[in-house]
Amino acid sequence: MAEHDGGLDSMSLNKLDCHSSSTLSSSSEQENEIFTKLKVSLTDDYPRKNAEILSGQYGTNLLLIGVSLMLAIGNNGASVKEEYLLSFITTLILVQLLWMMWYIVRRGMQSNLQAEKDVHATTSWIKGGLTLLALLSLIMDAFRIGYFVGYRSCLSAVEVVYPIIHATHTIAQVHFLWFHIKDVIKSFETFERFGVIHAVFTNLLLWCSGVMSEANHFLNHHNTRLNALGFVNLTIVEPQCNCTISGCSMFADGLYYLYPFNIEYHIFVSVMLFVMWKNIGRTIDLQYNRKRLATRTQWLVVGPILGLTALASTIGVLVVYIIHVEDALDIRESTIAMFYYYGIVMLVFMCSAGITGLLIYRADPMPMDTTKNPSRKLDTELLFGSSVGSWLMSWCSVVAVSASRSSPSYRWTNLMYSLLSILEKYIQNLFIIESLYRQREDGEREDAEVGGPAPEIFSVTSSLAPTYNGIINQAYENPDKGCVTLENEQKENGQGTGCTQKHLEVPLQVENNVEVNPSKKRQILKNIAVFLFMCNISLWILPAFGCRPQYDNGLEEETFGFTIWTTVLNFAMPINLFYRMHSVASLFEVFQRV
Amino acid sequence: MAEHDGGLDSMSLNKLDCHSSSTLSSSSEQENEIFTKLKVSLTDDYPRKNAEILSGQYGTNLLLIGVSLMLAIGNNGASVKEEYLLSFITTLILVQLLWMMWYIVRRGMQSNLQAEKDVHATTSWIKGGLTLLALLSLIMDAFRIGYFVGYRSCLSAVEVVYPIIHATHTIAQVHFLWFHIKDVIKSFETFERFGVIHAVFTNLLLWCSGVMSEANHFLNHHNTRLNALGFVNLTIVEPQCNCTISGCSMFADGLYYLYPFNIEYHIFVSVMLFVMWKNIGRTIDLQYNRKRLATRTQWLVVGPILGLTALASTIGVLVVYIIHVEDALDIRESTIAMFYYYGIVMLVFMCSAGITGLLIYRADPMPMDTTKNPSRKLDTELLFGSSVGSWLMSWCSVVAVSASRSSPSYRWTNLMYSLLSILEKYIQNLFIIESLYRQREDGEREDAEVGGPAPEIFSVTSSLAPTYNGIINQAYENPDKGCVTLENEQKENGQGTGCTQKHLEVPLQVENNVEVNPSKKRQILKNIAVFLFMCNISLWILPAFGCRPQYDNGLEEETFGFTIWTTVLNFAMPINLFYRMHSVASLFEVFQRV
Repeated sequence: MAEHDGGLDSMSLNKLDCHSSSTLSSSSEQENEIFTKLKVSLTDDYPRKNAEILSGQYGTNLLLIGVSLMLAIGNNGASVKEEYLLSFITTLILVQLLWMMWYIVRRGMQSNLQAEKDVHATTSWIKGGLTLLALLSLIMDAFRIGYFVGYRSCLSAVEVVYPIIHATHTIAQVHFLWFHIKDVIKSFETFERFGVIHAVFTNLLLWCSGVMSEANHFLNHHNTRLNALGFVNLTIVEPQCNCTISGCSMFADGLYYLYPFNIEYHIFVSVMLFVMWKNIGRTIDLQYNRKRLATRTQWLVVGPILGLTALASTIGVLVVYIIHVEDALDIRESTIAMFYYYGIVMLVFMCSAGITGLLIYRADPMPMDTTKNPSRKLDTELLFGSSVGSWLMSWCSVVAVSASRSSPSYRWTNLMYSLLSILEKYIQNLFIIESLYRQREDGEREDAEVGGPAPEIFSVTSSLAPTYNGIINQAYENPDKGCVTLENEQKENGQGTGCTQKHLEVPLQVENNVEVNPSKKRQILKNIAVFLFMCNISLWILPAFGCRPQYDNGLEEETFGFTIWTTVLNFAMPINLFYRMHSVASLFEVFQRV
Repeated sequence: MAEHDGGLDSMSLNKLDCHSSSTLSSSSEQENEIFTKLKVSLTDDYPRKNAEILSGQYGTNLLLIGVSLMLAIGNNGASVKEEYLLSFITTLILVQLLWMMWYIVRRGMQSNLQAEKDVHATTSWIKGGLTLLALLSLIMDAFRIGYFVGYRSCLSAVEVVYPIIHATHTIAQVHFLWFHIKDVIKSFETFERFGVIHAVFTNLLLWCSGVMSEANHFLNHHNTRLNALGFVNLTIVEPQCNCTISGCSMFADGLYYLYPFNIEYHIFVSVMLFVMWKNIGRTIDLQYNRKRLATRTQWLVVGPILGLTALASTIGVLVVYIIHVEDALDIRESTIAMFYYYGIVMLVFMCSAGITGLLIYRADPMPMDTTKNPSRKLDTELLFGSSVGSWLMSWCSVVAVSASRSSPSYRWTNLMYSLLSILEKYIQNLFIIESLYRQREDGEREDAEVGGPAPEIFSVTSSLAPTYNGIINQAYENPDKGCVTLENEQKENGQGTGCTQKHLEVPLQVENNVEVNPSKKRQILKNIAVFLFMCNISLWILPAFGCRPQYDNGLEEETFGFTIWTTVLNFAMPINLFYRMHSVASLFEVFQRV
């Protein structure tokens, strides 16, 4: 029934009114009017759906230009040089800087008008983590400049201009994110959409370029090792002149360890900006601006202890692995076997924790929270999407182990490890997503109090919102259907009560449920979240700092061949790192919610 | 305001009621009760969000197993043989057949209960097209069996079992799609979700395997040609024995031309099944079950004439290209140049048509249709997503042309062609998506009549729906917010009228607008849709039947190297074919709507 009035507000009704009266005039006048209207609607803002597609396509094409340049560079000795790519990225960065300046200045001039904010968009701890990553990126830029100074006689000037611009970009962007990422943009919507999506895809391109450089670094490292062991003879890309300062090798090694942080920084920023893009023109329910209840931390013992144990043993394994994997063949083999044993124990614990959490949820049915929340939806999709990379890697291992003709000691532990890591992601995703979508118990209690006055707050928001652009945006959003369903149900029941009244009943009944039962369950869930949090950090640390048995064990390389397997790893490894990082962030949120 | 009552229906309220009363009993009783409830909720259906993730992850992993097997096969001479992959696919097909049988039998037994249908899920002409593709797939299977018979002395038995099973699967699946694709499943939801997603990913895997085979076929063909020209000396995969029947070469050539249809068939089926999966547990508004107005076809002259001209010239170009591209270097070069000139003319016309359509829309602002429609949403995403493949290809061409050291006669026409094909997809996507999302004029007029009784129809649907599963599903859907916004607006205006009343005002005003003005605009739009429809068929025919200058012009291969460029093409070509096919389907819908 209520399916198209959504798209019509008083403004567009007026337009239609004019339109219908015009149809009474003569046809030449009509044509004139069409052209006038056309002029108006071309300078006017575009309808929301079109503006999204328009800007989304623009951003995608930016990324694809960058990717095709990278592919051309990937073919060594071709006519496309890395400087072209760096110049392209630099241009994008400069455009983004200009847009951010324009945005900040314009906001500053409008500071009298109180801007709407989306409180879900980010939290202060995410901002803190991001700032940390940005700092590490800045250090990386400093190292790059140092590296250039060392080899300045044989490196192009772009190699020093680029890190300087990148550092400027990092500082400006962190400032922007701190003060504007929650903004819900309501003016110049079409233009701002282009600005934000430009920023999103600039960061995505920086991410891609980071991934490519990291893969190159790692491959160089791997080749150096293979050369040293005498396995193969591959050419290694290095500057053609000698270093003129003392810190060159320190800079090169430092870059190797700093790359992962830079990569995470860019993907995080683009995700946050994407949420900002989705929020453009939205109407936010102000009632969400509630404070979070303090997190209770008593009984938080088992989770942290197990988690810290996992973290400590991880660091032990990492050190042993890095020292011994370059040794003779038998020590190398037992080092890899050790890694797999350790991994199996970790994953079994993680699976058990996840299953326990899911069983607790099953024992305690709770309605899902169905409110509109682009940030959470994106979180879910990213979690699911980034699992695909490591699932592919694991399934390739399974195929390789099953088909392999050689049989090193770690053959079957590798199989177990791969299967468990598929299962673990399966369970962990279910646990995190269910945790994020369950209605919050304390949130609901608060809503019981807020429930009454909410409609007034809502209408205040609506009236605060600036001019509509022909089509009302909140209608496109469909944040909830609320009344419609309930009203129908009530009619059936013959109650005929209003919407708000029904609304108040619900949370009160939930409230009864909350007071007595949950503290024990909540404590278990909190412990699980902390434990999984630490475990995911551990499983992030290992590959990030060079413990990658997939490169070293040789089984997959035998089955897939060097080229295919390296391609799979270059695709899957960064995504796997991102998955772990993102799980850590999500589990922190789970910890705060349960 | 109405944000969480969405998740609560009377059933779940009852559960919560029980729950809160239980909290008054002692703690051991409480634990017992937890276990009982756990048992119940484990056998019960899962909440919707979780069931989606659960089954989605299952399907993704099926696909990944298949992909990793393909990657292993891609490494020639490895221990993984193609038979393994075929056996895996055969198993999946058999499981799907079992599920479909179970589903059909169960539906047959419940035939007294009138099932809900999603009328948007498919149209009879899509079903017709699908049946045609399925028939061509069956012919392909027959050719495969014939090919096996010819080479039976040196081919494995799997090579004949597989086409037989594939043919059975095709027949059963087409039957299933004809009679059940519109079903909205409301019982055994979690189990059915697994069944449907299994079918989706089985078809996706068949699609991947088809793409791989097609790429192999094409590469073989390409290599044969290069060998013949004496450029390179590559090994060509062929059976190791002689053919014992007369039709072998006919079968091999036929397979080459039938592959594209089989590929399209599988991707189409998986898209349709995906919509069915998204529909599980949905509540459909019955009011949508309205008849379509007859499409008026007077004034439909310019579009079809231009379109047929394009189609005819395409076939001419195709024939000339295929005959002359294997000739000596200078004829070859002028053939490729001819292709680019032809392409530029086509694309310029298509861009102009798209821009005209968009300008007409700008001159005639119309609210967007914001109703829930998973099928349309998916259409939009597929259109956008599949553009990425050919955009990547075009940008690579642009990079190659700009960087190339050699300068054949078609260098700059290639650049123009690539840039235009990027622009053309950009504009066409905007046009199609806006057309699909604009409110239908005739639809609205009908709604003005339906508007009044709609709420009753709606509640009938709700009461017809079988048991709820703890959580009301339609709440998760958020089909529209309707009343909520309007009510607030009305409160501000001090009107205080009801929802339905406001609702009735709107379409009537639109109606005035419709009667006089639009016939000319609609005719132009219809002509544009027909023209673009034919052009997209043309641009599908060319690569599908072997006119692929990207392989033949040598510019890109020079810049990217053979491996990278072939990989890009193997990825982008099938996606580009799919894009054209999908545009044809969407443009047909646009034609019916405008």
